[in-house]
Amino acid sequence: MIRIRDDIDRLPLDRLDIQQPTLLLDRSRAMNNLTRMIERAGELGVILRPHFKTHQSLAIGRWFRDRGVRAATVSSVSMARHFSADGWNDITIAFPVNLRELNDIAWLAEKIDVGVLIDSAEAAEALDRRLSRSVRAWLKVDTGYGRAGAGWNDEARLRTVAATITSSRRLSFAGILSHNGATYHSRGPDAVRIEHTASLERLRRARAFLTSAGFGPCSISVGDTPSASLADDFSGVDEMRPGNFIFYDLTQAAIGSCSVGDVAVAVACPVTGLYPERGRLLIYGGAVHLSAQCLETEDGEAVYGRAYEQWPDMSDEGMPVVSLSQEHGMLAAETDWISRRSLGDLVYVVPVHSCLTCALHPCYLTLEGDVLDRIRG
Amino acid sequence: MIRIRDDIDRLPLDRLDIQQPTLLLDRSRAMNNLTRMIERAGELGVILRPHFKTHQSLAIGRWFRDRGVRAATVSSVSMARHFSADGWNDITIAFPVNLRELNDIAWLAEKIDVGVLIDSAEAAEALDRRLSRSVRAWLKVDTGYGRAGAGWNDEARLRTVAATITSSRRLSFAGILSHNGATYHSRGPDAVRIEHTASLERLRRARAFLTSAGFGPCSISVGDTPSASLADDFSGVDEMRPGNFIFYDLTQAAIGSCSVGDVAVAVACPVTGLYPERGRLLIYGGAVHLSAQCLETEDGEAVYGRAYEQWPDMSDEGMPVVSLSQEHGMLAAETDWISRRSLGDLVYVVPVHSCLTCALHPCYLTLEGDVLDRIRG
Repeated sequence: MIRIRDDIDRLPLDRLDIQQPTLLLDRSRAMNNLTRMIERAGELGVILRPHFKTHQSLAIGRWFRDRGVRAATVSSVSMARHFSADGWNDITIAFPVNLRELNDIAWLAEKIDVGVLIDSAEAAEALDRRLSRSVRAWLKVDTGYGRAGAGWNDEARLRTVAATITSSRRLSFAGILSHNGATYHSRGPDAVRIEHTASLERLRRARAFLTSAGFGPCSISVGDTPSASLADDFSGVDEMRPGNFIFYDLTQAAIGSCSVGDVAVAVACPVTGLYPERGRLLIYGGAVHLSAQCLETEDGEAVYGRAYEQWPDMSDEGMPVVSLSQEHGMLAAETDWISRRSLGDLVYVVPVHSCLTCALHPCYLTLEGDVLDRIRG
Repeated sequence: MIRIRDDIDRLPLDRLDIQQPTLLLDRSRAMNNLTRMIERAGELGVILRPHFKTHQSLAIGRWFRDRGVRAATVSSVSMARHFSADGWNDITIAFPVNLRELNDIAWLAEKIDVGVLIDSAEAAEALDRRLSRSVRAWLKVDTGYGRAGAGWNDEARLRTVAATITSSRRLSFAGILSHNGATYHSRGPDAVRIEHTASLERLRRARAFLTSAGFGPCSISVGDTPSASLADDFSGVDEMRPGNFIFYDLTQAAIGSCSVGDVAVAVACPVTGLYPERGRLLIYGGAVHLSAQCLETEDGEAVYGRAYEQWPDMSDEGMPVVSLSQEHGMLAAETDWISRRSLGDLVYVVPVHSCLTCALHPCYLTLEGDVLDRIRG
């Protein structure tokens, strides 16, 4: 953590000397998001094993540790290696085991408690052969999202994988784990809760099958930020692994997981063109700064971010980023909004998907002027 | 340029020890693409000022220089700084002047020949005040694409900006410059040619207006890879600035600028999940490795890349990447294609937009095992 200014406590943004598109972090918002999630986990009686793929920062990881969090989730072996070097000794690598990284996993398992995701007997066997120390193996279950995992009702595959794990030398059967990404397509808290409960019921049935088949005890670990933010039915759940909540973004605001005022990151972008005659404003800030991911509005329009003239005031809707090139972003705005801007002004673009936007930047600049690290995952 | 293996001349890919998603570069394809474009520029009688935003590599820049290219285009001041440090001394920064980087532009102009893009009197005046050495000022013209630039028929704005440039101390009026991004929405060579000619006709009219108003001589500089690859009407054009052609990608293949067999980059991705029962295969390779940009197929389906089992054989269509998460990519494939794969195999994903995909990687790995630099733009 490099303090680039130490003369004042909280700098006005126009004194940060921003020249190029720069990822800004509102520490107090992130802290509030963290506090709320820790409290929710406590109320729900589940272990919070936050996903660090969103922030990928050792400095931000320490905020979690200072608040008592001891368990972490990552999405790559290299992320696990970075965080283990910073003192994290209980990490789940929430990505189906990559057989090309078995040596790295084995190396990590000699140093810290590692959890891995397994959804095939072949992966379990290959990993087991390489390990010299034990790792926790989560049976990855697909509850309908259709990404990774054994189908929740594919009893043959569940049984085969669980049996391979339990009969291995070095894998200890931890339970079943899912990521219900379907909640990202929900709109509104009720829709998220319905989707979450449906997914959870499938996990409970998979667990009932496994325990009746002799594969117990069997914990349940669930993942997504919308459910972690909004759902209240966590009966039978042992841990949750939300990640995005630390920053949130426009997608989470559209789902209802947060308000735009909770979003803790934005990209400061210089204004480089004013075209009031066609209701457009050009910013230096394109797909390489924001990511090409878009969000569809209710009118079916694609939006790549929302730009605000002031940080951290997000009391209005902001101006939509309606198109992106590699380095260019185009805002649609009312003529009078454009007429209040000057070339060289900054606008603050709240991202559609903060995980992807943050991955494009080498570090975070806090509103106080601190530079926080970001590791390459 | 770090040779990571020096024992053999051309390594089979399975000996490159790829563990994580890795950006591969087929040097011979890129060289062929470069040769063709140099020949085209010669036949068309225009200066080739290639855009380096696609590759952003000093090593690859040297390939151009070795072939006699002396003029370059970049899209940021920091890119210009990097290439100037590697001996490039004639660089156009093809992005409307960012008033927050005037000092850097002034610094560069003391060392090399710099071209800038101007579309407002305010930017021209602000830049002129800061310069101590002369720069070439291109009047950026919008021929209908609607991104940056003064409208091609907005005579008041054209005249005002040209007058501000010609009456300045340090700006020399180079001419008019456009990027006709509309060709990216064309499908087929004829559609590209029609779009290109329409745009070019507007540039010629803008030039006729400016020269008749006393702002001559006035060169014309055009930009896009589809036109540079396919069009044949370049009368009145002085230079062209294609960039993507060095690698090409699926978008260019869909437009008709190239065939998939000309695409010189792909991301090698480990197979981490096999789900033949639902026609899906999971790869380690997500939006942080490929970019979230998608291409719509003729059937209206979104495709995030096409995966091949062998490099460099791209004789078939490849398997579409139908969805992406941060680190996960999902391929749709026939059951027998999936059944021929094993966990830990590599597939080679040809990107939708190579500029964005390459921007996500720290370097290039050539098929011969060389690591080539990539600068942060």
